[in-house]
This record gives sequence, structure tokens and C-alpha cells, in this order.
Amino acid sequence: MTAVDVVIMAAGKGTRMKSARPKVLHRLGGRALVDHVVASAVALAPRRVVVITGHGAQQVEDAVRALPLQDVQAAFVRQEPQLGTGHAVQQAVPQLPDDGVALILNGDVPLIEADTLRALLEACGGERLALLSVRLPDPAGYGRIVREGERVAAIVEHKDASAAQRAIDEVYTGFMAVPNALLKRWLGRLTNDNAQGEYYLTDVVKHAVADGAGVVAVACGDQVQVEGVNSPLQLAQLERALQRRIADRLMEQGVRLADPARLDVRGTLTCGVDVEIDVGCVFEGDVVLGDRVQVGPNCVIANARIDAGVVLQAFTHIEGEDKGVHVGEGALIGPFARLRPGAQLGPDVHIGNFVEVKNSTMARGAKANHLAYLGDTEVGERVNYGAGSITANYDGANKHRTVIEADVHVGSNCVLVAPVRIGAGGTVGAGSTITKDTEPGALSIARGRQVGIAGWKRPAKQKK
Amino acid sequence: MTAVDVVIMAAGKGTRMKSARPKVLHRLGGRALVDHVVASAVALAPRRVVVITGHGAQQVEDAVRALPLQDVQAAFVRQEPQLGTGHAVQQAVPQLPDDGVALILNGDVPLIEADTLRALLEACGGERLALLSVRLPDPAGYGRIVREGERVAAIVEHKDASAAQRAIDEVYTGFMAVPNALLKRWLGRLTNDNAQGEYYLTDVVKHAVADGAGVVAVACGDQVQVEGVNSPLQLAQLERALQRRIADRLMEQGVRLADPARLDVRGTLTCGVDVEIDVGCVFEGDVVLGDRVQVGPNCVIANARIDAGVVLQAFTHIEGEDKGVHVGEGALIGPFARLRPGAQLGPDVHIGNFVEVKNSTMARGAKANHLAYLGDTEVGERVNYGAGSITANYDGANKHRTVIEADVHVGSNCVLVAPVRIGAGGTVGAGSTITKDTEPGALSIARGRQVGIAGWKRPAKQKK
Amino acid sequence: MTAVDVVIMAAGKGTRMKSARPKVLHRLGGRALVDHVVASAVALAPRRVVVITGHGAQQVEDAVRALPLQDVQAAFVRQEPQLGTGHAVQQAVPQLPDDGVALILNGDVPLIEADTLRALLEACGGERLALLSVRLPDPAGYGRIVREGERVAAIVEHKDASAAQRAIDEVYTGFMAVPNALLKRWLGRLTNDNAQGEYYLTDVVKHAVADGAGVVAVACGDQVQVEGVNSPLQLAQLERALQRRIADRLMEQGVRLADPARLDVRGTLTCGVDVEIDVGCVFEGDVVLGDRVQVGPNCVIANARIDAGVVLQAFTHIEGEDKGVHVGEGALIGPFARLRPGAQLGPDVHIGNFVEVKNSTMARGAKANHLAYLGDTEVGERVNYGAGSITANYDGANKHRTVIEADVHVGSNCVLVAPVRIGAGGTVGAGSTITKDTEPGALSIARGRQVGIAGWKRPAKQKK
Repeated sequence: MTAVDVVIMAAGKGTRMKSARPKVLHRLGGRALVDHVVASAVALAPRRVVVITGHGAQQVEDAVRALPLQDVQAAFVRQEPQLGTGHAVQQAVPQLPDDGVALILNGDVPLIEADTLRALLEACGGERLALLSVRLPDPAGYGRIVREGERVAAIVEHKDASAAQRAIDEVYTGFMAVPNALLKRWLGRLTNDNAQGEYYLTDVVKHAVADGAGVVAVACGDQVQVEGVNSPLQLAQLERALQRRIADRLMEQGVRLADPARLDVRGTLTCGVDVEIDVGCVFEGDVVLGDRVQVGPNCVIANARIDAGVVLQAFTHIEGEDKGVHVGEGALIGPFARLRPGAQLGPDVHIGNFVEVKNSTMARGAKANHLAYLGDTEVGERVNYGAGSITANYDGANKHRTVIEADVHVGSNCVLVAPVRIGAGGTVGAGSTITKDTEPGALSIARGRQVGIAGWKRPAKQKK
Repeated sequence: MTAVDVVIMAAGKGTRMKSARPKVLHRLGGRALVDHVVASAVALAPRRVVVITGHGAQQVEDAVRALPLQDVQAAFVRQEPQLGTGHAVQQAVPQLPDDGVALILNGDVPLIEADTLRALLEACGGERLALLSVRLPDPAGYGRIVREGERVAAIVEHKDASAAQRAIDEVYTGFMAVPNALLKRWLGRLTNDNAQGEYYLTDVVKHAVADGAGVVAVACGDQVQVEGVNSPLQLAQLERALQRRIADRLMEQGVRLADPARLDVRGTLTCGVDVEIDVGCVFEGDVVLGDRVQVGPNCVIANARIDAGVVLQAFTHIEGEDKGVHVGEGALIGPFARLRPGAQLGPDVHIGNFVEVKNSTMARGAKANHLAYLGDTEVGERVNYGAGSITANYDGANKHRTVIEADVHVGSNCVLVAPVRIGAGGTVGAGSTITKDTEPGALSIARGRQVGIAGWKRPAKQKK
Repeated sequence: MTAVDVVIMAAGKGTRMKSARPKVLHRLGGRALVDHVVASAVALAPRRVVVITGHGAQQVEDAVRALPLQDVQAAFVRQEPQLGTGHAVQQAVPQLPDDGVALILNGDVPLIEADTLRALLEACGGERLALLSVRLPDPAGYGRIVREGERVAAIVEHKDASAAQRAIDEVYTGFMAVPNALLKRWLGRLTNDNAQGEYYLTDVVKHAVADGAGVVAVACGDQVQVEGVNSPLQLAQLERALQRRIADRLMEQGVRLADPARLDVRGTLTCGVDVEIDVGCVFEGDVVLGDRVQVGPNCVIANARIDAGVVLQAFTHIEGEDKGVHVGEGALIGPFARLRPGAQLGPDVHIGNFVEVKNSTMARGAKANHLAYLGDTEVGERVNYGAGSITANYDGANKHRTVIEADVHVGSNCVLVAPVRIGAGGTVGAGSTITKDTEPGALSIARGRQVGIAGWKRPAKQKK
């Protein structure tokens, strides 16, 4: 098959975004617009991807370089100044050997799918100019595909269209596939004798027709794939369309969603059997939910692996970041629990309300149910970690580790000052500040003696 | 009136649900699908309810047995193997004495209402086959009701329908009412000489017409009532339809909802006058909100009685479970408050952020406003329970009770180690761990003496 | 230009609201319905605003008096008993000098905009009766505008309309502008010889036509502006329409909304460049978000100024009330943080989970990351305030202030008993209750000695 050279137009400023960020770096489903486009391109295993940058060129190039490109070669060309879409593609010419086919994508049309592009390449067949079109209920404003028989005779801009042409509902999407050699020939003929003084890529159609070369159009049956982002409103609309697709796909797999309109997945959500997700949940990064996991309302979960049978109650906040979070089978988390990077919870662990766990392991059956902090700590099996207790892991300069061995009972409002080890089976009396290691099985207490001062007179309310 | 024997088809597997759970046990509005159907059936005061089970038969039967059936007799028959809808109803024949009318419902069509069924029974009149139909904007795929005058001449499946028949928008819903004697006669004539090799219940129409028996159809004006659940998507759609109905009903009663599309009621929500519910709230079980109750955004409330004038601020989480939660008149709760089973709060109680109350009573005017835990505690009037204070109700083996008498002031970060009693009007100094009962009016302190170590050098940051 | 006297009809009970509150005081976008109407009226700089009250007259009058009326004179007239809309306006007659134009608004039609009213006044031109009309897709039930040429010939009620008249889709909205002198003449001719025995304001059209005075109608192109509120459902619908408008306006300004359907702004939200707002957020009062502010999911923010680059993580709750909250540049807040009135945070401050800050200042770089309370406190630069630590600012009667000077490190689970000052660069040992001022640079500790009791036998589980 003919080699494919993908060209991605990513030079635009996106004035209507009213943002300092280059348009193609705005985020949809948690990823940059151009990231979506590159991913669809890479799925075709092309020879190379040529990205045309302009506004915020360095930022865009850095962002694309950071993407997983597999074995696809990435090249970058800059369009400065920006004199139209045809001018943009002209900059890519040096990257387009005569033996290949150029597949021209738009960095701000993010939801295009690889299968659609394959159909376009097939229509091109290595020899024709193939345009991707779409039928719109309201085509006003778009360039109409004027056909003569099967062949495309012209793209006619809305303002230039006759009444008959305006009745055409098939419009051009901005995507095309064309043999490099032909593309280069036609690009060479573009002129800028128009109102804007720009070189238009769509003018290659005119030259192709003039050359008697075949021009075909393939209609994309799925409007969302060809919708571009030019404003925050369009970005929001496409975000909703994407989220609805993700929700539909999850439901097809058997996931039960309390409200498909109130789910946000920004990354990859992988679910086992009989997973239930309540309203208002947000998932980011890579999240894996095992069989029968129940996610309560308004949870926010990022980069975490949640094993079978876990129940995440309302307002659970998990953020694994680089270290990840793991919650073992049958654990019960929340409400109002926060698991931070490096929280590794074993089976049947319970984490209750207003509890924060960071960079700590908790073995099977350990519990921290109320208002507590565990940081840089190793917690043994069946430990009960009392309400209000804190691991003081930071001495103002360095972080230290705490070890709580199996079967320890830590009372309420304790502080364990790291580095420290609580021996297995030991008990820490409520209100104790523990600074030294404790013996296994021992009761450790550090508290003042209780005294009573009878008839004490509480301060009276001062007048203001 | 003729006795009614309700037959509920509940044998299906629900393959498209992709779930280990029998289809009719999936939950809608917090209750199993079959639970909704049984409730509508029971509202008719029938002679008996016959449930035909198959996949997950034991689970389904157990679930139905656990429902409130009032005086209605429940019978269960199993359909194994499953050879079609006609075959299913054949299994129920022994439960259908000749003198009654069979009302055939579907366990996966949950929102059918008793009034609709009454109309169907009336149309049956104890002597005719009465079908429930519905008019669909897009009837494609459904069995059309072909009429001759008022009478039904046939149900014609979509694939067998002529162009004229396909233009009919009235389709069969799967519900019917029919005299038992006639039903049994026609069931006996069913054959399985069709592509699927199944016995179809709809074929009774053919035999009824052949017998010259009257067949009538009653159109249900409300499509939602006859929609079935075959996939997670349909379940989610029906959930939204149900929730919208609940929201509309609440608004008709005067409840003010900030966004009817963001309310979830899974159970019974009873509201007084001038109740306001903000966005994103979830109600489960039995919840009663008194006059002028305000519920802030994103609250989750289950099994609770909230008295007049209470303000529940954002992110209030209440779960009464079996013991219930009661919040007295004029109380102020949240944000980020959690009330657990057995929390019984008197009038004008204040519960603030990051405070958990479990199995405790708080008398009029008591306050726990910041980061605190109250468990198994009796709190007197006007008590002020300090920030960070904890009742240590669990000694690692047993739960004990704490009593805080009226007008006590508990300082910050205290621990009250149960069993313990703080005498009326007493004060507990901040940071104290109280293990012994205190005298009324006394100041109780248990803390170390403050010492200062001048010029102390804090650890330096270690190089890594 | 002719002086304008605005007349606002605000006497209605709103029976369908099923509320003890007068209808025009129900809230939309956080403000009373009548407040919206008054604001549009005031924007026209009229000579006076005459509010006709009836049900809950005192409440309504008090509410309107509390609004910012600039230099506009407010007058109140009461309609008791209530004998129809014409009767209502008759009460206002003493407030309408002959030299002005009456602009008649409805207190329960809140989203009317000043520009629309200006167009109506212009059509009136100080000499004609000008009606505001709207074209409805389904005009059934509304009074049709019957025209003869450009002029209005009549308003015909739906029930009185001929088939041809029912086909008219232009209906009357209840708004009119009319010279006072003419209005008074026509009001004097109203009769109540109709089924309801009421005096209808719309009858002035009949008298105007009879007098040969010109009657014109201006069509409002925006249906939402003329929609009235008669039920909680209509209130909710209008709330959603208003919120959608606010969302659209924010997006046009460049604000990126994760879901425009899940944003609630009840007041004024002012945003800088590159602001991002995640799903489910609620803004109340005056909120200012600086450039690049990121607001995570499910935040609730009221009366706050958030400077550039601040990140508010999920479940951040800010309520400035009268004192306001200020968050300095680059600060990181949340998740599960609560900032209360008078929280004044400097640049780069970090407030973490389950932390409450009230009436306190925190200087640049200060941190309180875990389960803590800061109230009535002054915190210096770079202070690290430990997990679980509490300022005991309330002695049961009075509030006192705490001062934590720069570079202090407060350990975990400490209590600082106000009034108290922690000297610069000092350290407070974990678990200490500090009641006396500490020296700069000192280590301050107040805790019991740690003792271990070997072989301690923990209580055994009691049988129940």
C-alpha cells in the first residue's frame, strides 16, 4: 500500500477561545485537542506525521513530542506568517516525498476516528483527490460539495453558492487525502487573489478538476467526528458529545450509570462486571474498577486501581498521580475520604470520613474510620487507627516513616511522631503523643494526669 | 367483581445487561424492577400474584417474598427450560382457577401504574381478551395492533407486516388481561413452529379471533409506563424518566428545586411547605423534610426526619439506615457534616464541618462545629463541644457510652474516654484526655506542663 | 424625552407556588423575582417606580426598599381587595402625573431586559399605547394580537377567538407603555361585567381603539424575557434558562466550562483570562476569579476574590458573607477545604483537606494541609501548621486571637489556646497544648512522658 504522510494543521491562534493557550492545546476529555488527532493518525501506522505549527509553535511542538507516537516519525514545520490553509500545507511540502499520499487533518477537529480516515484513504486509492464530506441538517455557511455524477465538480463557498447549490446539504469537512505528487503540483498553482488575500487549500479541488484528475468525496456519517473547536462553547459541546459516547460505551459493556449525562471520564476507565457508578462522578487518568465495584455520588477518582467488591461511598476523592492508588478487594472507603499518591490498601480495609491516606500501605482488615491522617506509614493487618489520630511524618524539614505492626489499637487523638514503630498487638492510649518505639503487646501512654478544679468560674461574656 | 390473578413474567436472563444479577432484580429508583411491578399489582388487591421465575429463580423468589404483599397470596412457578413467553405463562396454569381473570405483567416493565391496569381489567370485563397497546412515534420493530372496527383482528410482527400495517403506530405492550378459562384454552393450542422454535404468548390473539371471542385493545397514553428494561442504557433512560416524574410531582406540591434534572430520589421523599432543594442532591429510603427546610447543593440524605426550618448546608451526608436520623427544628447542619444511624439532634443544634455524629443524642442548642467525633454519646442542652474533640467510644473490643451534661464546655482536641460522664456546667480544658467522671461545675484538665527550649535547632533538610 | 413612570404589578398571591412567601419574592438566580424587574426598570432611569402590592404587601415593600434604586423614587400602593389587573393599575393612578408615560411591568416576569423596554417606550413615543408581544410556537391559551395593517385592532382572548384568530401566533405579554393621561382615561372606563367579575387591564386596548388612538405592538424576539413564574416548575425552568444564559455569556468571554448545564451562578461571577470551571460548581454573591484560576468539580464559592493562578480543588467550600474571603495568587486550596468569612490568604498559601479557616490572615507561603482549624488567627509567612492542630479561639464566652509568627512549625494535633503568640521561627512539639506565649526560635512542648506497660491485656469483647 502507498505510504501515508499525515499532515496536521495546528498553527491557528483560536482568537475566539480568548485564551493565551494555543488553540490545539485546549483540553477535551482531559487531553489536548491535537493529542486526539495524533492518536487517530498514529492508529493508521503512517510513515510520518507532519505537524504545521504557528501560534504557540514551541508549546505545540513540545506537547506533540511528549505523545506516544510509537514508531511514527514526527516532523514539525512552522507557518509564519499565516497566509491561509493552502499556505500552511505548502510549508509541509518538503516533508512529502512524491511516492506517498498526504492525509490532511485538522488539529482542532479532535474526534475524527481512524476508521473514517481509512475510508478516506481507500477512496483516494493512491491516485485521486479524496475529500471527506458530511451531510448537515443546516449547511448554511459551509462550503457545498457540488457533484457531477459520482465525481466532485467543485466546492462552492456559501457566499458564492446559487440557490440550487445552497440546497445541497453535503459540505466539506477540511479533511482530504491526496497523492503527494499531485498535491504539490496543485499547491504550486494556488493564488491569493481573494478578499482575505489568503491561499486556500480548498482551491486544489479547482486545479484537480481542471487537470481532469478524479475528485471524490466520502461522506462521514457521524457529524461529531468532523466538528471543530473554535470557541469555549464549541469545546463544551464537544466535551459533552465525547462524554456521552464514553457513557454509552460503558453502558454497552454492562456498566450501570445512574445518569449518563452526569459522568465525566478524562482518560481511560476500565470496568469489570456489575460495576455501578452514581451521579456526578469524575474519573481522570487510568482508572480500573473491578467486578461489583460501587461508586457513590460525587466521587473524584484519578489514576487508581480499585479491586473487586470495593464500595466507594459519596465524596470519595482519590488521586494516584504518578505513584497510583490501589484499593484491595472488599474495601470500604468514604464518605469524605481522600486517598493520595502511594496509598496502597489491602483487602477489607476501611477508610472512613475525613481521613487522608498518603504514601502508606495498609494490610488486610486495617481500619481508620474517623478524622485521621496516615502519611508515609506502614500499617499491619487488623490495626485499628483511632479517630483524630495523626502520623507526624514531617519534622519541618524531612519526611520520616511510621510503622504500626499488626493488631495494634491506636486510641483517639494520638500523634505518632516518625520515625517510630508501634510493636505488634500493642495499644496506644487515647491522647498520647508517641515519640519512641513501643514494645509488642504493650500499652503505651503519654498523657497528663487528670485534675479537677472544683467550682471553676468560666469567663463571662465581655461586653463589646 | 371477578377475581384477578396477576401473572408476572420474571424468568428472563437479560443478556444485554451483561450482569450476574437476574434482570428483574436490577434497581430503578432504588428498588428492584420486579418490586415496582409487584407494588402496582398489589395495589389492585388481586386474589394472588403468580411470579414466573427462571434465571436466578431463587434470588428473584427471595426478593419477591421480602416485599410487602399485604394480604395478597404469592405463588411462584419456574420456567425451565425457557421456551418463549407462551411457554412461560403455561407454567402458571395450575395457579389460575377457571373463575378468575389473568392479568399478565412483565417483571422488566417497571413503571406500569395501577390505574392503567384497572382500565385494562375493565376492558376485559371478565369475558374478553384485552390487550394493552401504546402509540409510538416510531413503531418500527414492534408488533402492530391490526383492528377491524373497534375489535382487534391481529397482532402482526414488524417483519411480517405489510406496508399498510407498518404505517400503524399502535403496538402491543406485552400486557394483557384475559379470563383464565379462555387463556388456558388458547395456551393449549400454542405451537412452536417458528424460526426460534418458541411458544409465543401473542399467538393467543390468533386463537381468540379464530374462536370469535372478542379481542379489545386499550391504548396507554403514557409511553414510560410500558417501557421495558433490556440494557443498562434503557435502565438509565427509565431512571431519568422516573426521576423526572418524581421531580415534577414534588414541584407540583410546592417544593422548589434548583434543577429538576439533578435530583435523585430513591425511596420516599415527603416535604412540607416551602422546602428548597439545591442541585445535585440524592435522597434514599424514607426521608421527611419539614416546612421551610433548606437542602444545600450536593447533599446525600438517607432515612432521616428533618424538622421544620432546618438548614442542611452543602455536602451534608446523612444516613439513618435502620436506626434513622432525626434533626430537630431550626438546626444548622454542615457543610461537610456526617450524621450516622442513631443521630438524634434536638432543636437548634449546630453541627459544623468535618463533624461525625453516630448513635448519639444532642439536646437543644448543643453545638459541635468543627472537626469532631461524637459516638455513643448523650449530649446535654447548650453543650459546646470543641474543635477536634473525640469521644473514644471503642476500647478495641467494646463500645461504651459518654454522657456530657448540660452547659458543659469541652475544649479543643480533647478525648473523652468512655464510659465517662462530664458533670453539668463543667469545663474540659483544651487538649485534655478525660478518663474519669468529672464533677459538675468543675474545670477538668489533663495535660502536660508547657516547657520552652530556647534556641532549639530544627532538623535540617537532608540531602537525597 | 417624556418622563417614565414604571408601574410594577406585584400584588399576586401565586397560589400555585403553594408557598407562604409572596410570589414576587421567590428567588431566581439568587435574587427575588421583583428584584430582577426593578433592576431592569432602574436601568431606564425612570422618574419613579410604583410598586403595586397586595399579598404579603409589607414583605414585598420591605424587599423593594432594600434594593439599590439609585436616584429613582419608589412609591408603593396597595391593592386590597384584588379585583383584577386593571383594578391594580387603577390604584397607581395617583402616582401617575399627566405629563408622563406609564411603563407597566410584572413583578413575576423577571428576565425582561432594559433594551426591550426601551424599544417599547420608543414605540409608545409618548403618545400611543404600545404593547409588548411575542410570537409563540404554541400560542394556545394566550390573548392574540389582532392587527389591521400595522395597527393593533384588538387583543382577543383564546376562548373568544375565532379559528382564524387562533391561528395568530403573536400574543400579548402583559407589558405595555402608555401615556399617563390616556391610561387614566381608559382605566376609568373599565368594567367588571365578565365571568370573573374582574377589571382587566387588557380592556384598555378596546377603549384606545374606540377612541381612535393608535395602538401598536412590538414583538419581543426573546421568549425567555416575557415568561412569567406561576409555579415551582416554571420557576425551575426559568432558573435553567437564566443559568444557560449566564454560562453562554461566560463562555463568550473565554471561560471554559466543563459542562454549561451544570453551573449555577447566583450573583455576579467575574472571570479573568483562561479560567476553567469544572462540573457542578455553585457561585453566589460577588465572586471574582483571576487569570488562570482553576475551579475543580463540585465547588461552592460565595463572596470571594480569588487571585491569578489559584487552584481550587474539588469540594472546596468558600463563603465570604459580609467580610469576604480573599485567596492570594498561586494558592492551592482543597480538596475538602472550607474558607469562612474573613479568611485572607496570601500568595502561595496551601490549604488542604478537612481544614477550616475563619477570620484569619495567612501570609505568603503558609500551609495548613490536613485536618486543622484556624480561627481568629494571624499566621506569618512560611508557617507550617500541622495536621490536626486547632486554635482554641473561644473560651466558652469570648473569642480571642492567636498570632503565629513567621517560619513557625506547629506540630500535629496541637492546641493553641488564645490569646497566645508563637514567636517567630519557633517550633511547637506535636500533641502540645500551648497556653502561654512562646519565645522566638524556641521549641515548645507540653505533653506527658511516654510510658509503656508491658503485656497489657486489652479488654475482651463482651458477650451481648
